[in-house]
Amino acid sequence: MKHVTHSEIGLPAKVLRIEEKASASLAAGEARVAVLATPIHPSNLLQISGQYGQAPQLPATPGSEGVGRVTEVAPDVKSLKIGQSVMLAGGNTWQQELTGPAEAFIPLPDGADVLQLSMLTVNPITAYLLLKNFADLKEGDWVVQSAANSAVGGYLIQLAKKRGIKTINIVRRENGVQELLDLGADHVLVDGPDLVEQIGAITSGAPLSLAIDAVGGETFSKMVDTLTYGGTIVCYGALSMTEPSLSSRAVIFNDVKVRGFWLSKWFETATPADKQAAFGEIIGLVASGTLKAKVSQTFSLDQIKDAVTAAAESGRDGKVILVPNKL
Amino acid sequence: MKHVTHSEIGLPAKVLRIEEKASASLAAGEARVAVLATPIHPSNLLQISGQYGQAPQLPATPGSEGVGRVTEVAPDVKSLKIGQSVMLAGGNTWQQELTGPAEAFIPLPDGADVLQLSMLTVNPITAYLLLKNFADLKEGDWVVQSAANSAVGGYLIQLAKKRGIKTINIVRRENGVQELLDLGADHVLVDGPDLVEQIGAITSGAPLSLAIDAVGGETFSKMVDTLTYGGTIVCYGALSMTEPSLSSRAVIFNDVKVRGFWLSKWFETATPADKQAAFGEIIGLVASGTLKAKVSQTFSLDQIKDAVTAAAESGRDGKVILVPNKL
Repeated sequence: MKHVTHSEIGLPAKVLRIEEKASASLAAGEARVAVLATPIHPSNLLQISGQYGQAPQLPATPGSEGVGRVTEVAPDVKSLKIGQSVMLAGGNTWQQELTGPAEAFIPLPDGADVLQLSMLTVNPITAYLLLKNFADLKEGDWVVQSAANSAVGGYLIQLAKKRGIKTINIVRRENGVQELLDLGADHVLVDGPDLVEQIGAITSGAPLSLAIDAVGGETFSKMVDTLTYGGTIVCYGALSMTEPSLSSRAVIFNDVKVRGFWLSKWFETATPADKQAAFGEIIGLVASGTLKAKVSQTFSLDQIKDAVTAAAESGRDGKVILVPNKL
Repeated sequence: MKHVTHSEIGLPAKVLRIEEKASASLAAGEARVAVLATPIHPSNLLQISGQYGQAPQLPATPGSEGVGRVTEVAPDVKSLKIGQSVMLAGGNTWQQELTGPAEAFIPLPDGADVLQLSMLTVNPITAYLLLKNFADLKEGDWVVQSAANSAVGGYLIQLAKKRGIKTINIVRRENGVQELLDLGADHVLVDGPDLVEQIGAITSGAPLSLAIDAVGGETFSKMVDTLTYGGTIVCYGALSMTEPSLSSRAVIFNDVKVRGFWLSKWFETATPADKQAAFGEIIGLVASGTLKAKVSQTFSLDQIKDAVTAAAESGRDGKVILVPNKL
């Protein structure tokens, strides 16, 4: 079976390669799963190139999540059936096959879109937690987010809409606007020098207590300037690769709070009840097609270099997903 | 009686002037107090020059706090006696005399140092709250602060020492070091390019969960880099007048939290119980001489232009205090 691997840190298109290895034999309590779809996230690319919060232990097979189909179970395994769709959340998902303890594979509803299901555990959970853990938002409240045409941004628009929270969405280019409005965005603004005034005109005095930023740089600073007294800005990315300058005035006199969010740490520290609540809500919404993300392209494992190159393109519209086995 | 006033926003030495006005007559329930000492704080100077969170209503008499002596009470006032020392916390203290409801003047212990008592409500309360409200520090824990040779910095060293909290104190010039060690500072470091490494060498792996910054700029950024996972940096000033750049990496991957502190807002929003707890602790410590700040110079009201000029000097060593009546 094939897997993606790299033995050094570097540019993904350079250091990643495909290797064949023998299938592992199944121990008691284990299951074998054919990986059907596994997305390429910016965080995967950052980790391969050494710019992430955690360095991989080399050689490493990247991949954060995916969906698979059970192909074999050890004789003592009763919880999984051959052919069952399951969620892959343990990492190293960029390969054709995974084996492991049966309880590590969470059964998924049948008949749902496999590509959508493959993106369950990272982006929609991030959007759900960003919207839930940093402010007590009620129906009719406003939230502002940057990188609104990212996968997280799209999920956030849909989740906010469902809760009756109104979104102001910042994008970098005009061409993403209509699509976000179609998803349920209340307002979409192209980033520019008058961003603060534009946002003020939209909320017309209503307090803005939560800003969600994945861009950094000047976008962060402008978002800080739109917050109400005591408001919070949460950073979960820095796509501009520019460190923002922080307004001491806003922090001191307007009591603006700056926070960060990193999903990996949430997985480490959240209680089982927290996780159950998050997944319980998200799995249902994705499986029913209520919550979705745009898919840009799919690639086989053999096309890994093209796949990571496509995923790294800044104008990319939708997620790039690896399809290690024929769907 | 004389008072300091200004009718326009601008450089304090330029816009402040002394005016005579008639003493107000006392209404029922009121007391008259001769102002004995009232400090010049950086926040007063910022407010006069229009760089503060609140603009003064012009014409304005500046001044945040001070100590006075009761000179007259209305016949129905039983709570205050002529000659009693009282705390002035209602503002407009840069004048020879204040009249107001008797209950607005809090009696102070007799026999204590008047200059020290005049600085009760701003700097020591700030230091007390910075140390108390943003982290759950225990005996033996570390805290790092910048502007350590400021009045707040000095109080913070003393209050931390009393609680067994160890302080790392950052100053901008070598000449302030010994004095802070004498106050009880555990370590005093002169700000420089290797600040982060120096702090790491001191704590040698012990977590640093609270950084207190009044400088901004690069000092803020270096302090952020010394914090442990989930640590907090609190800003209460920006003496460098330079906005810090914020490390997205620290905020996202190290869960560093950025907060601000503004005493005026605390006075507006704190519960009576919170205020009582804070003042209860601080008044006793200052009156007994346990907690003190260095006084640089005193000036009469007539010398107001010299006084604010001295207070604005960056190398100033200790507080400048106005003495509107002979002590």
